[in-house]
Amino acid sequence: MKDRIIWAAILWCFAILANAHEPVEKWGIFELRLEAQPPGNPFVGISLSATFTNGTETYSPEGFYDGNGVYKVRFMPGTEGTWTYETLSNFAGLNGHKGEFVCVAPSAGNHGPVRIRNTYHFAYADSTPYYPFGTTIYEWAFQSDERKKQTIETLKNSPFNKARMLAVPPFGDRYQSGPDSLHHFPYEGTPPQNWDFSCFNPEFFRELEKCVTDLQEIGVIADLILFRPYDHGRWGFDTMTPECNEQFTRYMIARFAAFRNIWWSLCNENSFIRHLTDEDWDHLFQIVETYDPYGHMRSIHNAGRIYDYSKPWVTHVSLQYYNAVRVPGVSALLRDLYRKPILQDEINYEGNVSRRWGQLSGDEMTYRFWNTYIGGAYATHGEAIEGGWLSNGGLLTGTSPARIAFLRGIVESGPAEGLNPIDQYYELNMAGKPGEYYLIYFGKENIREWPVKLPDNELEEGMVFQAEIIDTWNMTITLVKHTFQLKKLDNYSFVDEKGQSIQLPGKPYQALRLTRIE
Amino acid sequence: MKDRIIWAAILWCFAILANAHEPVEKWGIFELRLEAQPPGNPFVGISLSATFTNGTETYSPEGFYDGNGVYKVRFMPGTEGTWTYETLSNFAGLNGHKGEFVCVAPSAGNHGPVRIRNTYHFAYADSTPYYPFGTTIYEWAFQSDERKKQTIETLKNSPFNKARMLAVPPFGDRYQSGPDSLHHFPYEGTPPQNWDFSCFNPEFFRELEKCVTDLQEIGVIADLILFRPYDHGRWGFDTMTPECNEQFTRYMIARFAAFRNIWWSLCNENSFIRHLTDEDWDHLFQIVETYDPYGHMRSIHNAGRIYDYSKPWVTHVSLQYYNAVRVPGVSALLRDLYRKPILQDEINYEGNVSRRWGQLSGDEMTYRFWNTYIGGAYATHGEAIEGGWLSNGGLLTGTSPARIAFLRGIVESGPAEGLNPIDQYYELNMAGKPGEYYLIYFGKENIREWPVKLPDNELEEGMVFQAEIIDTWNMTITLVKHTFQLKKLDNYSFVDEKGQSIQLPGKPYQALRLTRIE
Repeated sequence: MKDRIIWAAILWCFAILANAHEPVEKWGIFELRLEAQPPGNPFVGISLSATFTNGTETYSPEGFYDGNGVYKVRFMPGTEGTWTYETLSNFAGLNGHKGEFVCVAPSAGNHGPVRIRNTYHFAYADSTPYYPFGTTIYEWAFQSDERKKQTIETLKNSPFNKARMLAVPPFGDRYQSGPDSLHHFPYEGTPPQNWDFSCFNPEFFRELEKCVTDLQEIGVIADLILFRPYDHGRWGFDTMTPECNEQFTRYMIARFAAFRNIWWSLCNENSFIRHLTDEDWDHLFQIVETYDPYGHMRSIHNAGRIYDYSKPWVTHVSLQYYNAVRVPGVSALLRDLYRKPILQDEINYEGNVSRRWGQLSGDEMTYRFWNTYIGGAYATHGEAIEGGWLSNGGLLTGTSPARIAFLRGIVESGPAEGLNPIDQYYELNMAGKPGEYYLIYFGKENIREWPVKLPDNELEEGMVFQAEIIDTWNMTITLVKHTFQLKKLDNYSFVDEKGQSIQLPGKPYQALRLTRIE
Repeated sequence: MKDRIIWAAILWCFAILANAHEPVEKWGIFELRLEAQPPGNPFVGISLSATFTNGTETYSPEGFYDGNGVYKVRFMPGTEGTWTYETLSNFAGLNGHKGEFVCVAPSAGNHGPVRIRNTYHFAYADSTPYYPFGTTIYEWAFQSDERKKQTIETLKNSPFNKARMLAVPPFGDRYQSGPDSLHHFPYEGTPPQNWDFSCFNPEFFRELEKCVTDLQEIGVIADLILFRPYDHGRWGFDTMTPECNEQFTRYMIARFAAFRNIWWSLCNENSFIRHLTDEDWDHLFQIVETYDPYGHMRSIHNAGRIYDYSKPWVTHVSLQYYNAVRVPGVSALLRDLYRKPILQDEINYEGNVSRRWGQLSGDEMTYRFWNTYIGGAYATHGEAIEGGWLSNGGLLTGTSPARIAFLRGIVESGPAEGLNPIDQYYELNMAGKPGEYYLIYFGKENIREWPVKLPDNELEEGMVFQAEIIDTWNMTITLVKHTFQLKKLDNYSFVDEKGQSIQLPGKPYQALRLTRIE
């Protein structure tokens, strides 16, 4: 009897230990590890998920096979307290595993995943506003460790808090042989086309996870691009069957959805993948919507045929349309058309390459950024100087990042709600918050004088504003000495009661910031 | 026996005569008239339609009650030859009427209804291109006969071939009493709110039909606006129930769909009708799609909340967004977003009224038209000089119509396919047909010299172009004396092989037309 009690106690301890887990911080990753050796291909025919609940909320993320007889289920808890789980699988050895863990307060700098805020803007789950200032480093995750470290270091000292990056490298000879050759591909097999699309290569994805984690640590969103059209008949990752595409999408979600700094970009330049229709993309969007338990941001990046961003599963517009940022006011229109956040996610790149998409001067890039933010939208930078950064990361050498940092400072110190166009049917270049804050951008105009005149919304006679002249290129902010008390001019506008104007330096790239002080 | 044969012959003749109809021209209106006195409200509970077939095509338009014991079914045959019909009704006296008529060739000037052509453009059913040049005369159909006659006369001598017009007048005191008071309202009853929404007033609709016919005779499309938000709590035609809205829509279709010059505009400034959601509009669109047998053009005109023009039942965009025509390139973007024809259907009005939507100078209106057509889209004019034209029709006194006529001449003598943007991601102000025809608009820029440089698409070395300088305001076209032979500059562009530029007058509103001659 005593023996039996001792044995029972030992077994109980084992049971506890087996299911005992370290606490996980809020929006951190809980990872359940299960060993199992089902017969046949471990990627095929084995369903695995786990249901997590704290009594109020319930989530059921899918698990994935991580190689070497190990299956994993990842979960990102969004509420502190005790969570229990139970696995569900069609393979007995993976089914019915139960346990619990405690979710504790988030560590410093962990604000959770990003959500939409005020229709056109974003905030982290803890309500801290998130103003995207993106950059593009498509292939950085496939470079040497040293290069990756350098990229992270550069990003850390840059204004950029979102990185557009490919989940799968584009075809490139250098990735097949030589010093840059890849050790791992997403599928088992060998390049160029000897792939087993029924077997993922977990090591490839683990390396990608490391990159996402590194971005997370420096507060950068990984705008992770699932598909891309860049194999040109070689590797064939862009000509897989719809079934393989779906499998890949679900595997990516199972591995990455628990990372709080993930956004899903379904594809880069999607219509260049000729065999996939908009209905195919609808389906893949629905897969992401269904299997990502946390509702990370979802969009798709167009080529010639623009996907219909008004579809309900698209959280924000991720547009490639260079001319949309060359004139003011277009981002405001796009907001009104879609009633979603607008990301001008490819606006050409600062650079000096022979292709015209990579020939912007730093001032033109800066100008396009200002046009975008004044339109109440967000832009994404890229650099193609000597062919660098855009593909491989490394160092930034352009002149626009410093100006983008300056703009970011202005945006982040502006209205907490985010910049919204003011009177967007009649004003092309004015954003802010009616009655409180006005940012007016003159772009390439050589304005010498601006007669104070503001759209009437939320204004009252007697309100007093201070004005600052912002040189967006030289990054200076100069307070105008006199202030401006408003009087009504007509049904539509208020002017300074003394008829004062503001003198401007008569050169391009100037802006004004008017802030109400009384 | 003889008697019986004679009687049979007489009856047979009667049968033929009873169903004998005059021939109807192709795209004209066949109207079947039936007398019946069903018990109760003749508008309610009586279903009536007729199925028309020529053996190959079959159409089943709904009929309508036209007052005085008369029901009608209208049909627009689109194929020459013999058509037979048979009525279907839940009232015996209207059911099972059969007959036939012959459809003959269309008369001169009858090109049939308008269809979409080449995704972004229009043509009549006989393939004659239709390039919309619209104007706005919301309330013209509710004015005196004399005024209406004047409006038709003005239109006849104007560049305008599409008129945006309300099917129901907005509330106005002058329509209730005084010399302008209306003799008829769409419903039985008396203003302001004593309406029987179960009884239409056929006389009101007959007068509207006369207006549509008058427009047809001078080749003008009636862009007929079914609903409008302008009753301000008075008449209540904008606060009817969804059932009444549907009934009204079906009655309008039954009466007007057989007119070949009809377009359906579901509503003007639709979101100002606060109680109707986008789903309500979806439903009304579907009603139009279902009951209009001919697929006339369908759109809706927005206020603040922009209806999703990508929905499948919307044939073209009918946008109100003033800033979209103040900068070049936006119409091209809208084409790429929607892949439908873009009509900039409210771009502010030439005028001098106190409201800012009616304060455009003639040159600004002309500028907005050019921006639109260079973007591969179509615009709609309006005039608010001394409050005239826009509401009541009458005379045009502005300075833009002559310039719009000039533009129309250029557009109609341009590529038969319609103007399409050339290289719309990189060029903001160039339309035409690659390799053949280029229209370049400089807007408000004071260009003195334009170095010949064209995007490479469809160009080859050695091609020769002639150039004309177009003064869009002074309406002159000046041939440049020398021609330009092209050579390749780089991956993207061709230039004149001698490096020639074109000298321009250094003032606003200039354009260039380059036409290939060799």
